[in-house]
Amino acid sequence: MFQEIFYEDYQVGDSRTTLGRTITEADIVLHAGQTGDFFPHHMDAQWCETQDFGQRIVHGTLTFSVGVGLTAVVVNPHGMSYGYDRLRFIKPVFIGDTLHTVVTISEKKDHKKRDNVGIVTEHLDVQNQHGETVLVCDHLLIVSKKAIQNG
Amino acid sequence: MFQEIFYEDYQVGDSRTTLGRTITEADIVLHAGQTGDFFPHHMDAQWCETQDFGQRIVHGTLTFSVGVGLTAVVVNPHGMSYGYDRLRFIKPVFIGDTLHTVVTISEKKDHKKRDNVGIVTEHLDVQNQHGETVLVCDHLLIVSKKAIQNG
Amino acid sequence: MFQEIFYEDYQVGDSRTTLGRTITEADIVLHAGQTGDFFPHHMDAQWCETQDFGQRIVHGTLTFSVGVGLTAVVVNPHGMSYGYDRLRFIKPVFIGDTLHTVVTISEKKDHKKRDNVGIVTEHLDVQNQHGETVLVCDHLLIVSKKAIQNG
Amino acid sequence: MFQEIFYEDYQVGDSRTTLGRTITEADIVLHAGQTGDFFPHHMDAQWCETQDFGQRIVHGTLTFSVGVGLTAVVVNPHGMSYGYDRLRFIKPVFIGDTLHTVVTISEKKDHKKRDNVGIVTEHLDVQNQHGETVLVCDHLLIVSKKAIQNG
Amino acid sequence: MFQEIFYEDYQVGDSRTTLGRTITEADIVLHAGQTGDFFPHHMDAQWCETQDFGQRIVHGTLTFSVGVGLTAVVVNPHGMSYGYDRLRFIKPVFIGDTLHTVVTISEKKDHKKRDNVGIVTEHLDVQNQHGETVLVCDHLLIVSKKAIQNG
Amino acid sequence: MFQEIFYEDYQVGDSRTTLGRTITEADIVLHAGQTGDFFPHHMDAQWCETQDFGQRIVHGTLTFSVGVGLTAVVVNPHGMSYGYDRLRFIKPVFIGDTLHTVVTISEKKDHKKRDNVGIVTEHLDVQNQHGETVLVCDHLLIVSKKAIQNG
Repeated sequence: MFQEIFYEDYQVGDSRTTLGRTITEADIVLHAGQTGDFFPHHMDAQWCETQDFGQRIVHGTLTFSVGVGLTAVVVNPHGMSYGYDRLRFIKPVFIGDTLHTVVTISEKKDHKKRDNVGIVTEHLDVQNQHGETVLVCDHLLIVSKKAIQNG
Repeated sequence: MFQEIFYEDYQVGDSRTTLGRTITEADIVLHAGQTGDFFPHHMDAQWCETQDFGQRIVHGTLTFSVGVGLTAVVVNPHGMSYGYDRLRFIKPVFIGDTLHTVVTISEKKDHKKRDNVGIVTEHLDVQNQHGETVLVCDHLLIVSKKAIQNG
Repeated sequence: MFQEIFYEDYQVGDSRTTLGRTITEADIVLHAGQTGDFFPHHMDAQWCETQDFGQRIVHGTLTFSVGVGLTAVVVNPHGMSYGYDRLRFIKPVFIGDTLHTVVTISEKKDHKKRDNVGIVTEHLDVQNQHGETVLVCDHLLIVSKKAIQNG
Repeated sequence: MFQEIFYEDYQVGDSRTTLGRTITEADIVLHAGQTGDFFPHHMDAQWCETQDFGQRIVHGTLTFSVGVGLTAVVVNPHGMSYGYDRLRFIKPVFIGDTLHTVVTISEKKDHKKRDNVGIVTEHLDVQNQHGETVLVCDHLLIVSKKAIQNG
Repeated sequence: MFQEIFYEDYQVGDSRTTLGRTITEADIVLHAGQTGDFFPHHMDAQWCETQDFGQRIVHGTLTFSVGVGLTAVVVNPHGMSYGYDRLRFIKPVFIGDTLHTVVTISEKKDHKKRDNVGIVTEHLDVQNQHGETVLVCDHLLIVSKKAIQNG
Repeated sequence: MFQEIFYEDYQVGDSRTTLGRTITEADIVLHAGQTGDFFPHHMDAQWCETQDFGQRIVHGTLTFSVGVGLTAVVVNPHGMSYGYDRLRFIKPVFIGDTLHTVVTISEKKDHKKRDNVGIVTEHLDVQNQHGETVLVCDHLLIVSKKAIQNG
């Protein structure tokens, strides 16, 4: 599970698909409990029936957390999560939907101030069981360069 | 808890501070369980002692989820979460840290394609008990306009 | 969320209705885990089928805890929970029921020993999605008096 | 675990002591998550340091739920929980306190309308590790009468 | 709940049946979270539909933990769990199945090195709502002998 | 994470070490909640202080579940868990201990009745942060044979 991957090893365009994960009613209950977000959109089935979406929808922060969590398979001691850009909620996620994430290396660039690292962007495309994208975001990683490492 | 707030009601520069929330060891355990991210940075106290940060650190997705969750106090039927920009992990969060979020309306702009809504940006500044910023992000909301609503 | 409310501010007859909350199977599982009450009425669907109520019923302590929790919206630094009277289980609550609480100020009276506080009674009427009362109780609050506070 | 106990079998004055249970930080986190009560008294260690009690205190509904749960050892098919009277929070409960409950049969009386059952009152005295009472309440049970049962 | 049972008190062939417990979707979610086992057999409903078993199956370690937990009713200060032999997964357990355990004293034998204790084997037969065995194991207990205790 | 491994691919003596995992107080609370085992050995810090081990100890089923869960990294579609032999609790596990598992292929043998599969034994040695073994067991896997697969 530990695997050393340097900046030079990342190839723009490389892609992998994670395992899938069904989002359950229990996940919503636990996430509301963890975040304190008890908005009726997530917690009140009766009210949701009166809304356009018709049923409880999964918290955006839960879809994001699970979508990201699914990618956490290999520990790379040379990389560090730096942040996320352009996180967008594309489609609602419902109880019983099964999510997986397609991870694509979408960009590599030098770090403005530090020679020994670069910034790698992973594009995350979280999809449901119908192959529809429900959430996208760009994950920014600061990764050590091999050359400098050895230098 | 339901409160009607239209696009016109948001004032750039307006700011509010949420309640605080102490992040516990239990929160990390539950978040690992929810996301499947069992990286040793969060789950292995023994290994963490050998690292620079010296102790378990809170998942970035947990800090984000709690930081956002703290703002979920008023349900505005005229607003909808659209996404997040420039999410950055500024400082590590440790077990026992108490977080609160400062929410500031940082921008308002028209929607490119739809006349009846605008885009409101809330800047979220999640701070620890020392007043240090640990995470920032820009929350994008699509909000109905009053005029159109009545027109 | 912090709001200063003195004894004098409470008006007998004032009423508010909370948000709703759907009670899920996960809530029963978590509450059994929290309380250690694994009685078959809550945990054994097979046995419940042989009983009058025909299906698993929600723990009384869970209905009470959620019914009370729904009211916890505003922190009043001048009030303190003192206890509950006449807590009654009126109807069984089943998995999937959506509860909300109607809170009514039902009584105000002086404290027998302390001049600077009074006792405010909130009547809690927890109802399901059919508008049926499932639990009632009287919540007793000790609240500071304004006059004394300033005196 | 199933044990048949009729109204006539209860003896006023009979008493039993439950097992003990340490209330952990995890219990507070889970109970906040279950009830939606994220008041700073329970969740914000930093704020609590500025208050009289100096540290996070356990939710009243949690102390009650655990205090009652500890008594749920024997399933009596002839008894049914009817409600609670005079529930009082006597002393604050802190993280790490170990609670047990002393259950005493305090009253028996006929049911006003139904001949075949009686009302048994169990007085619950929830105590901490110092033998101090932290919560009391009277648990009301409706219990079938043996005579009628056989008649 | 505390009950003193010595080695001599156990009778080979004695049997008891525990309460039942319905295994819920929430239990799987919590167990995955506790163990880190997010295999698609348990977590991915979409993938499971393509497999022979057709639906999510319960973790073997969960069936075992619940099957054993159901037996934990009486604390015997003279016994200590030593291990398990011949743990076998006989049939898959699905969400919604209700399990109970039949415990039979299957063997008693002296301890090879210590005179004052013996080894008692409890055979655990975990069954579903159809009376089908889903898991078996032999639980080994080291139990104090009465004679030596008094000697 | 899916990786095809046939019976012929397993080599007796091959060994791997899992990531580590710190067992927290929250894990005990959740496991008690999941199993219903609220024995004072795990839940009552006050009582534990009066016992030889002096502090709360982790449920055996939790140590087992986590020790096994740590090994669940690669999904092998050709293998199926069959059971466990010689599961032994060697040393108590305490809150805060960090566990990892050393997995060694200890035996391979033909299946008595089925030509197309064999039985592979993985010996699991669960160790704490001091390198002390706390639990051992032999995990039995039924694994498809390559030859037959192709034949």
